[in-house]
Amino acid sequence: MIIKSLLTESNPFNSTVDIKSWIEQRNREVEVEVEQIPFEKMKMWHSESDGSIRHDSGRFFSIVGIDVRTDIDSMQHWRQPIILQPEVGYLGILTKEIDGVLYCLMQAKIEPGNVNCVQISPTLQATKSNYSCVHSGKAPNYLGYFVNAKPENIILDQLQSEQGARFMRKRNRNIIIKVDEDVPVLEDFHWMTLGQIKELMHCDNLVNMDTRTVLSGLKISDYITPLDGLKSMSEFGRSMILSSVTNYSHISTRDHLSWLTNLKAKYDLFVNFCPVNDMPGWKKTDREIVRDDEKYFKIIGVNVTISNREVASWCQPLVQPMQNGLCAFIIKKINGIYHFLVQAKLECGNFDVMELAPTVQCLTGNAENSAKKPEFYDYVMNAPKERIIIDALQSEEGGRFYHEQNRNMLVEADDNFPLELPERYTWMSLRQIYKFLRFNNYLNIQARSIISALNYK
Amino acid sequence: MIIKSLLTESNPFNSTVDIKSWIEQRNREVEVEVEQIPFEKMKMWHSESDGSIRHDSGRFFSIVGIDVRTDIDSMQHWRQPIILQPEVGYLGILTKEIDGVLYCLMQAKIEPGNVNCVQISPTLQATKSNYSCVHSGKAPNYLGYFVNAKPENIILDQLQSEQGARFMRKRNRNIIIKVDEDVPVLEDFHWMTLGQIKELMHCDNLVNMDTRTVLSGLKISDYITPLDGLKSMSEFGRSMILSSVTNYSHISTRDHLSWLTNLKAKYDLFVNFCPVNDMPGWKKTDREIVRDDEKYFKIIGVNVTISNREVASWCQPLVQPMQNGLCAFIIKKINGIYHFLVQAKLECGNFDVMELAPTVQCLTGNAENSAKKPEFYDYVMNAPKERIIIDALQSEEGGRFYHEQNRNMLVEADDNFPLELPERYTWMSLRQIYKFLRFNNYLNIQARSIISALNYK
Repeated sequence: MIIKSLLTESNPFNSTVDIKSWIEQRNREVEVEVEQIPFEKMKMWHSESDGSIRHDSGRFFSIVGIDVRTDIDSMQHWRQPIILQPEVGYLGILTKEIDGVLYCLMQAKIEPGNVNCVQISPTLQATKSNYSCVHSGKAPNYLGYFVNAKPENIILDQLQSEQGARFMRKRNRNIIIKVDEDVPVLEDFHWMTLGQIKELMHCDNLVNMDTRTVLSGLKISDYITPLDGLKSMSEFGRSMILSSVTNYSHISTRDHLSWLTNLKAKYDLFVNFCPVNDMPGWKKTDREIVRDDEKYFKIIGVNVTISNREVASWCQPLVQPMQNGLCAFIIKKINGIYHFLVQAKLECGNFDVMELAPTVQCLTGNAENSAKKPEFYDYVMNAPKERIIIDALQSEEGGRFYHEQNRNMLVEADDNFPLELPERYTWMSLRQIYKFLRFNNYLNIQARSIISALNYK
Repeated sequence: MIIKSLLTESNPFNSTVDIKSWIEQRNREVEVEVEQIPFEKMKMWHSESDGSIRHDSGRFFSIVGIDVRTDIDSMQHWRQPIILQPEVGYLGILTKEIDGVLYCLMQAKIEPGNVNCVQISPTLQATKSNYSCVHSGKAPNYLGYFVNAKPENIILDQLQSEQGARFMRKRNRNIIIKVDEDVPVLEDFHWMTLGQIKELMHCDNLVNMDTRTVLSGLKISDYITPLDGLKSMSEFGRSMILSSVTNYSHISTRDHLSWLTNLKAKYDLFVNFCPVNDMPGWKKTDREIVRDDEKYFKIIGVNVTISNREVASWCQPLVQPMQNGLCAFIIKKINGIYHFLVQAKLECGNFDVMELAPTVQCLTGNAENSAKKPEFYDYVMNAPKERIIIDALQSEEGGRFYHEQNRNMLVEADDNFPLELPERYTWMSLRQIYKFLRFNNYLNIQARSIISALNYK
């Protein structure tokens, strides 16, 4: 049923073309105004004496300062602003089997920071503050289905991390439920197959980050039955299934665990809160928190007016990046089995020091101008077209980030690519990646974003 | 080799009786003096203006205050002292195969807080401060074997948590290595089989916590070969092997993950540092940090003089409990397979909100006098003798805790024991427990202590 959904793009309810034009139409219909305003003009928000920016309710999220010390690469010590939201939100997709095919109830959702205002989003996307109505809107649609789901109706239910460089230990509950009863399809919602969503992920900025992270947890090979066969899959799809089920791996999971244990034990990461007003290299003006050299990102305050949200108009801080990023996995067949080149990456907001990241994860401008480019950066950027399997711009969550995009790439290595890797890199089969993915805080959101875009068709 | 080691107690180097008398002899030989002294008399330690107690080097460990808010059971808010040691230490056992049997190089180690001064300890037990010589002693014995171990010589290598009610997010690297070369056996070290160590765990306070946590990660069933057979095992041992290898489980791992995700998302745990001098219900005198009602535990300062340690005499703070504790697993055969009754327990110092704990984990005095006794407490305390499989007093780590003991129990449920459980409890086969145990911060140290004592002989 899931596998059929994955391989099906013919949807009696909405064709893929229809979905695209529906999103375009929604984009034309809704009026979104995002106006940058001084911090002190943000209704319901205030600055504390230390410069941090908080919601008047004390909940929702805050912009605070952190002091970071780590000894990775070399001794490093810096301060930076970060998003603090110490509560677990729901990212939920409601599904239903119709004529043997699984359909996902997806939402055309507008977020102030989205590059395309409207993106395809999960059925439910709600912070705890959201659904306990701190935001003074009404209860989120379909919340009840998730809160009351029985174990037998839960397909997937995982705590997964958000961006470790921007969020302080933030996690969300990624959940997919399957209901049997009829579900009312509200305005802004449409049924889509997994195959359609995967197809749409190959367009720039059309499927939002939350959809991608939820779907990344679905281990496709778990749902293959002899009846489905592999024959309707592409050769690449079949190779990915093989990599998901094989017992062969170039490096054993025991060795991966030891490798990661060693790295987490070897490198320190000390993070403490500090005043936003006391962050060397950063300044807080009445309109932004920004670095003197204007690198990395800045914090701005905005007034948002949107026509079809719970609350029609509100103010909030947003993170605005200074440049785009690159997230790329290199894959290589080892003894006929695809292996992913995985990086253990330390980021200041990580829940557990290091998470498994794509081969390359960096800010493009920084990388280009840096004396020492990130490992494998040149290899990815110079990959010939025939070795590039995935290449699309994907947005970060538009509720927190203003026009933040990362180029997501999947690149197949050539035959001469070395098997020997630097300390913080390893090879994993897709089966091994999914093994880690099931447990909290192993794969970072950038890695999950690319995994979710793997297309089997 | 491992399984032979497990089932072997005949040790050509040291019989179990010899080991016991060796420990007794060491206890007689060494002179250990632990004298409680005022905090300000502790050499190399000082109190900060907020009342926290720190080592002059800024490393090692500190006693700090934390402010805890959680909404589990009901809204709760309290402050307490806690041990802060934000670095990962080594707990390492060096092993070697001799005549087809695996031997562990164990140490008769003295710790100031041990109930029996000398306990059987891992080959290596070293904090990062320790082995980078902050403690101004010499480098720990055998450290090099662990630091330079090659992947193929590493049997097990995991980050595991310490006591969540006493340590702030503390973890250690639990590692077992197997060497091929001859290893010098230093004074205070002896070769022991796994079977011998397991046997000694059934004595009170003889095998230290660090040994128990390291060995808990060894999944015995991984090492059974057809040649070893199961025939030299006890019926209980064979049942445990069955529970470790079976695909059957009363509740699926997917459901366990969902259950835990739900609990971690549902309950908040906010922990912030606060001044030791500002903790309602607690007072700091010149000699202790203690509650007004003298409950739970207190912090004391001691001067330690020991004859065979790296440093012969030193001062340090210790945690002294006000009462003993109880840690008990209830097990029950469901469809012929042993399942453990596992609790998801929130503790303030947990790295990840909740960890999997024994069925009952509490302070005995508190439980007895409380209006509402912990779930299953009475069941365990009233278990008839023939249903008690393990029952021994085990010490917590004597380097931080003064005479802290927990009664470790394994109790088999009777036929009428209900399968339906309260929200925070579930059934797991041993196979499922080991699945979680491989990954960081799932099984708490109390649960691991009991798992390590499972005897297959």
